[in-house]
Amino acid sequence: MSEFRRDPVLGRWVIISSERGKRPTDFNPAEPKKTNGFCAFCPGNEDKTPPEITSIREPGSAPNSPGWRVRVVSNKYPVLEIEGDLNKRARGIYDTMNGIGAHEVFIETPDHYSTISKLSRQNVIELIWMYRERMVDLERDGRFKFILIFRNAGQDAGASLSHPHSQLIATPSVPKRISEEINGTHTYFEFKDRCVFCDMIDEEKYYKQRVVVENEHFISFAPFASRFPFEMWLLPKKHSAKFSELENARIADMADCFQESIKRLDSALEYPPYNYIIHTAPCNTDKDYFYHWHMEIIPRLTHVAGFEWGTGFYINPTPPEQAAEILRNACKS
Amino acid sequence: MSEFRRDPVLGRWVIISSERGKRPTDFNPAEPKKTNGFCAFCPGNEDKTPPEITSIREPGSAPNSPGWRVRVVSNKYPVLEIEGDLNKRARGIYDTMNGIGAHEVFIETPDHYSTISKLSRQNVIELIWMYRERMVDLERDGRFKFILIFRNAGQDAGASLSHPHSQLIATPSVPKRISEEINGTHTYFEFKDRCVFCDMIDEEKYYKQRVVVENEHFISFAPFASRFPFEMWLLPKKHSAKFSELENARIADMADCFQESIKRLDSALEYPPYNYIIHTAPCNTDKDYFYHWHMEIIPRLTHVAGFEWGTGFYINPTPPEQAAEILRNACKS
Repeated sequence: MSEFRRDPVLGRWVIISSERGKRPTDFNPAEPKKTNGFCAFCPGNEDKTPPEITSIREPGSAPNSPGWRVRVVSNKYPVLEIEGDLNKRARGIYDTMNGIGAHEVFIETPDHYSTISKLSRQNVIELIWMYRERMVDLERDGRFKFILIFRNAGQDAGASLSHPHSQLIATPSVPKRISEEINGTHTYFEFKDRCVFCDMIDEEKYYKQRVVVENEHFISFAPFASRFPFEMWLLPKKHSAKFSELENARIADMADCFQESIKRLDSALEYPPYNYIIHTAPCNTDKDYFYHWHMEIIPRLTHVAGFEWGTGFYINPTPPEQAAEILRNACKS
Repeated sequence: MSEFRRDPVLGRWVIISSERGKRPTDFNPAEPKKTNGFCAFCPGNEDKTPPEITSIREPGSAPNSPGWRVRVVSNKYPVLEIEGDLNKRARGIYDTMNGIGAHEVFIETPDHYSTISKLSRQNVIELIWMYRERMVDLERDGRFKFILIFRNAGQDAGASLSHPHSQLIATPSVPKRISEEINGTHTYFEFKDRCVFCDMIDEEKYYKQRVVVENEHFISFAPFASRFPFEMWLLPKKHSAKFSELENARIADMADCFQESIKRLDSALEYPPYNYIIHTAPCNTDKDYFYHWHMEIIPRLTHVAGFEWGTGFYINPTPPEQAAEILRNACKS
């Protein structure tokens, strides 16, 4: 079982995979994983993944057989394990606990060679619907404090398998980055009596130059303090703290705004590696008035180097106003 | 001039290089910078860099001519500029200020093909001496709140030129990462009445399994909550808040511990890309009793992916106890 370890200075948790124990020869960043053409995520190979948790599939087709359009399974090599107890304890002067959590995989489409921007509109809608369903289900498990949905697209963004997939990890403590966002939004709310994300949406709609895509219920823009070239944030225009509260009637708008944003990225930068993450309020929180869920889309075009690691400052060589203009003009659809 | 922009949620500053304005075609991570064999950092090309700020050189040799062993120049393409006023101001609901600061380059050796582990002992001693000298000098400039010395080794760690060099950036505000460390060490001190880094040194010396190199005045170890495989921290064993206070009599011990640690990394992992950074107390602070300067050495073997960006949690596949054992056995010298 993996182990959470707490940095005694920063309070940051690290997950140490004690069992895998990668040795020097295991690190070969230049070499993609060899699969000899076999893909466990392709239709027909359903028995090569852990049993499916849920799926959207053709009427009459059986679980763990072809006929699915979006399929969710447990990660075969989970970072965190679902069974067991946290067992919080000291190790000398340090703090540790067992690597308990959930780690699921969304197989986004049966088509091995597809990408988010090439999926049918209906497929994207079903994927977003499935994201929400898993979030709703796992929020009921009292052991979890936070649930992250994310995608690593391309090897340089950390993807180890090429079949289109995204992931979910549920953690037993609220991550540092989320606590910081909660604290930041709370401070802003105390000062202004408004949600900082609502203020940003208002400002971006007024200023226009950083907006990439907008429809009735969703907006994506290049944030004012973008850390990375062509970074985008996607938000519901109506205040909402939790992604799990996304209404059925608004899923299509989110799917459209999302896919349109990725299409523009893929068109402007020729399918760059990227990550996206959904930030939502921690489970079981009642502070709904000051947090606002959103998706961050992070193209991986530059190397994070010593200065960034050392300071937490980021250096971005592309002003977001310029990035947004390029993305807006990338593919008028 | 570049611009600092503040993230309104996290308070994180980003440096936007508005003038460079990198467009999509400028990003080609696979292609190293072509130099046609020319190197501005090699002896004989001193007029191709900005004039030297200082150097260690043969007696009688003139500035900006060959004969130097370690040479410091301003960065030709500085992230921050030394002349001007911060001009803190609002842009809509956001906060911004001018990109004022210092950005210097340490050319570590005349030998284009050397590395930290191949330098002569005397050369490493002179490099550390020079780090301290520049730190002492810039701490006198009242505009700077923090000074970071760092190195990007290898293209995957962000190096754009291959001649051995490290860098210094002085910033007009205390970086978020440093504030967090200061807060963390302060909280620990309030609770324990001891420095957390001193406690870690004591614990590591007692436990032994994570120690990599130790001599009379310095120690390097794989931290308990290592974020990255083969990460190392290097610290003075005697409490000291500021790197600029490093005594002459201890520079050789630091140089030995430092070079020995890098030698082991290069030997175990065959010259991996890595970053190192020196974390020291902010300029003009009087909180010297609870901070402890140190160097963090970060090999770049794994991709930081969506989960890490989204949460601030790190996943490390190599337990630090195992990493330290491999490093200890890498090259007995």
